[in-house]
Amino acid sequence: MVPARPENIDIAPGESKTADAGNDSEALSVLKKNRRRLKKVVLDTSLFVNPDVRASLGATPIEALETFLCLAAQIGNIEFYMPPSIFDELLHFVERDKIPGDLLVILHQKPPKKHELKCPAFLLYELIEDIRERVNKGLRLAEKAVRSAELKKPDEIVQDLRKKYREALREGIIDSKEDVDLMLLAMELDALLITADQGLIKWAEKLGIEWLFPERFKDYLEAAVKRTKAPEGKTKKATNKS
Amino acid sequence: MVPARPENIDIAPGESKTADAGNDSEALSVLKKNRRRLKKVVLDTSLFVNPDVRASLGATPIEALETFLCLAAQIGNIEFYMPPSIFDELLHFVERDKIPGDLLVILHQKPPKKHELKCPAFLLYELIEDIRERVNKGLRLAEKAVRSAELKKPDEIVQDLRKKYREALREGIIDSKEDVDLMLLAMELDALLITADQGLIKWAEKLGIEWLFPERFKDYLEAAVKRTKAPEGKTKKATNKS
Repeated sequence: MVPARPENIDIAPGESKTADAGNDSEALSVLKKNRRRLKKVVLDTSLFVNPDVRASLGATPIEALETFLCLAAQIGNIEFYMPPSIFDELLHFVERDKIPGDLLVILHQKPPKKHELKCPAFLLYELIEDIRERVNKGLRLAEKAVRSAELKKPDEIVQDLRKKYREALREGIIDSKEDVDLMLLAMELDALLITADQGLIKWAEKLGIEWLFPERFKDYLEAAVKRTKAPEGKTKKATNKS
Repeated sequence: MVPARPENIDIAPGESKTADAGNDSEALSVLKKNRRRLKKVVLDTSLFVNPDVRASLGATPIEALETFLCLAAQIGNIEFYMPPSIFDELLHFVERDKIPGDLLVILHQKPPKKHELKCPAFLLYELIEDIRERVNKGLRLAEKAVRSAELKKPDEIVQDLRKKYREALREGIIDSKEDVDLMLLAMELDALLITADQGLIKWAEKLGIEWLFPERFKDYLEAAVKRTKAPEGKTKKATNKS
């Protein structure tokens, strides 16, 4: 299937005519131009702070950020975005003063246009039904915990309940305004969403948002660097300068 | 403020020109025509089955339905709607065979176009935040219940917990697909929503959906009957026949 062309692409106005000509060399030129399309990518903070996901980028959040910056600076046709609310989460792990200046340029901090965007109504049904089942499950867990009080100590039960309750009510669901920010920003920009949050990935699926295995983020960046440096990439830079 | 004109109104095509003419008698004619506008109303099952709300209509659900039918049949310019999922709820209280035939004509059973409708994205934030707070409250209630196990019997605690948990997680929120059906149908039809559900009323407020005190439903119907029978109403019928 041919995906609909995103709104924000850096292709010259005459391009579609060329594509219709049906000539082989012209088709090849369209193919080359497509490789130079501006791509937008929305990043979640989990890529830098979740130790499992971050592993290939660095041992600490700041190391992971630096590796990202080093690679991102060499990529010609990708713009990186992060909602400010998510950037705030990053600041819990990296001191504000230690954020490299380059990051402020390379990683755009943009909130979604929440008062202009619309989302398909059928999603409301799925969200409400999902929550309804989880809420019922939460009550069943709580009842079970109460009934186990004869056998175990309250502290032990409460600790176990908290874990199970959070798993049942939070995992695999969008459950914070930060999650909504990421989802809507990716929708608004027609961007690729990279996150380790399974709830967000589930919703990206529903909304037709492109997403990527988060643990392959470094490989994605490296491949993008390679493509920027490849002949077509060089041609692009020359074209841009002229 | 002048409300935007709903899409579905029974006004002749030339009406807007007349309105612009600025002539007094023409303005009066527009005023009369406005009184004859087709109004759409979406009804919740609570109007017939909730004893407090139903009181003025009848002692039982079937009595309330019959009173409604008797009044609705005399109203010229209001169409009544109920989503099929809500009608199904009504069938828990009234036997299918006892549903008066008139109801099938007067009360349109229409689901919303859930795959065409869109809802403003900012509502997702409010819904998610609301649920997040409720989920946290649910956990606090559960913990408290566990810790009270030393003093009370498990059955007693569980019963109390169920009540409090449901209040905290369900009341004042849209929590079922039936609720979403009502909300979206009212949105789709630009209709007046009449329900006793506080969660739905809260969301109607957010979405700009017209709503009415449910306990005044009978008064609303009676006033509409009066207006249908008033001189302007008769003029309308005459016009329709010609």
